[in-house]
Amino acid sequence: MAKKEVFTDPANKKEYAIGIDIGGTNTKYGIVNHRGEILSSGAISSKEYEDIHDFIDALYNGLVPEIKAVGGMQYIKGIGMGAPNGNFYTGTIEYAPNLQWKGIIPMASYFNEKFKKPCTLTNDANAAAMGELMYGAARGMKDFIMITLGTGVGSGIVANGQMIYGHDGFAGELGHTTIIPGGRMHWATGMKGSLEAYASATGIAITAKELLDEKINEKSLLRDIPHDQITSKSVYDAAIKGDALAKSVFEYTGEILGTALANFVMFSSPEAIILFGGVIKAGDLLMDPVRRNMEANLLPIFQNKVKLIFSELKESDAAILGASALVWERKDESPADVLEAVK
Amino acid sequence: MAKKEVFTDPANKKEYAIGIDIGGTNTKYGIVNHRGEILSSGAISSKEYEDIHDFIDALYNGLVPEIKAVGGMQYIKGIGMGAPNGNFYTGTIEYAPNLQWKGIIPMASYFNEKFKKPCTLTNDANAAAMGELMYGAARGMKDFIMITLGTGVGSGIVANGQMIYGHDGFAGELGHTTIIPGGRMHWATGMKGSLEAYASATGIAITAKELLDEKINEKSLLRDIPHDQITSKSVYDAAIKGDALAKSVFEYTGEILGTALANFVMFSSPEAIILFGGVIKAGDLLMDPVRRNMEANLLPIFQNKVKLIFSELKESDAAILGASALVWERKDESPADVLEAVK
Repeated sequence: MAKKEVFTDPANKKEYAIGIDIGGTNTKYGIVNHRGEILSSGAISSKEYEDIHDFIDALYNGLVPEIKAVGGMQYIKGIGMGAPNGNFYTGTIEYAPNLQWKGIIPMASYFNEKFKKPCTLTNDANAAAMGELMYGAARGMKDFIMITLGTGVGSGIVANGQMIYGHDGFAGELGHTTIIPGGRMHWATGMKGSLEAYASATGIAITAKELLDEKINEKSLLRDIPHDQITSKSVYDAAIKGDALAKSVFEYTGEILGTALANFVMFSSPEAIILFGGVIKAGDLLMDPVRRNMEANLLPIFQNKVKLIFSELKESDAAILGASALVWERKDESPADVLEAVK
Repeated sequence: MAKKEVFTDPANKKEYAIGIDIGGTNTKYGIVNHRGEILSSGAISSKEYEDIHDFIDALYNGLVPEIKAVGGMQYIKGIGMGAPNGNFYTGTIEYAPNLQWKGIIPMASYFNEKFKKPCTLTNDANAAAMGELMYGAARGMKDFIMITLGTGVGSGIVANGQMIYGHDGFAGELGHTTIIPGGRMHWATGMKGSLEAYASATGIAITAKELLDEKINEKSLLRDIPHDQITSKSVYDAAIKGDALAKSVFEYTGEILGTALANFVMFSSPEAIILFGGVIKAGDLLMDPVRRNMEANLLPIFQNKVKLIFSELKESDAAILGASALVWERKDESPADVLEAVK
């Protein structure tokens, strides 16, 4: 953010943003400077606090010592937040299927009240995309899609150098697009055959359990694990030991994810798809079938063009950095303007 | 285009654009003024000319008398063109599955050579979207998706007030996205289960034939027509006479199209989806199941928000007007700038 620092009064040079990433399981936070360095960070459980205000109090209590460590609240410019179903335009979280707080939550207002600082929020995956655009694998790209493969499947879309928010602030819910009509029912949305039902960590574990039940006579290391303890991690562990059934789980997941990515490519024709999140630790086990199926489902004009790459940022950092970027952004600035300021 | 006329030298006031819409079956052309009025128009077959240069000669011969009628070539500012797989950035048509000219065709260059006028081209559906944005149902909208339902299924996407071209100029090939993995094979692309294989006029006729073969004991007016003469029009004619099998063809088509539209909504969250082309003549027969299935496949945050509307322009006009708009557009102007100039 060199450009901005040049014009900043020396007295204000010490200026920080709080970046918060609200996930289905944990909420991570960090204090970030203008150069995108995370000076301190921490996390609390997202599931532990039934009352949203208890959650905000817990975050506040976690942050206060960190804020003091950088000099006090007067040096905090604001709070940026990535959250499932977070709405950039209204500052609300609306009907997030993976969070326990239901309905419309005026999250930005609540944080503003508690911290007495301006708070801006967006979709968690949009925040991750913004982190990638400013500090990671998407630097210099004008058209890319960020896909986050974690507990859920999120996405952030940048086209013409701008974040696509849509008319209402909710664009980019690609995890909930239908990829197999009438397929597997999603545990939270009740929708059938959505990408998230298959390509999330949860979806991968379900596929493993289904295959174990289906191929009842096939040996597998996964049979040593009680059904309710099988996770995407256990499938990965078995697969790298050569377990055929575990490998077929990734093959199946890759087929579905690859087909979905082909659809996304034919929508906005990105230069790259950037993948991010716990599930990508599966590496080539997943990515080989993803690439193969993506290419096979593309029109020739799109084939062998799209880079399929992993995030260059640490998993927790991307979302915090992206969220913090919202703080540096003035209300009348577009993400492209902020990008310009970073150069 | 009032703003432009104010600053135009009186001697240049008489200025026209040629708009050309290359379709799988016919190619339509028109001479358009700054106010978006089509002064004269005509059409030639797209299928009759195996050699692309014969095709261009035929278009030229058709246009010359019309150009003379408006005062001569000196009043023509340029040529704008909408074509399947038309690339805005390169002026080429690349591997268009519904055209007989294969490979990469430098169409803009060919027209430029023949007419000695600058020629700009884009995807036919992008051109239709631009027509709608400037003169039709999308006036004032910043986020919408245009879906053309004709011989094929095309699309043009506008987000943040800008046409989405993608990194290579090919964004918006939604007709070729997979909606039923492993489903019906497309007659030209060889891809399985793409939207176009079902929701195009061709796809509707195929569905009718499949249902006739499948429900061999069900009576239908369509049984009076030889299989190879069944078209989407004959299915419509039978359906409005109350034919149950014909109605179920639209129900099935609406189920697939509605699911696909829900996916598109969750990508860019448009204010409206604008439908256009011969297939929409089916009206509520198609639109009732489309609406129902779209809503059923949307996350709650997107439900009952998206306008599903028909083009306000005559079918042939939208593409010609949109194509002609490319002419008024300077190379360094974005569609949003042009829109600004129209106001």
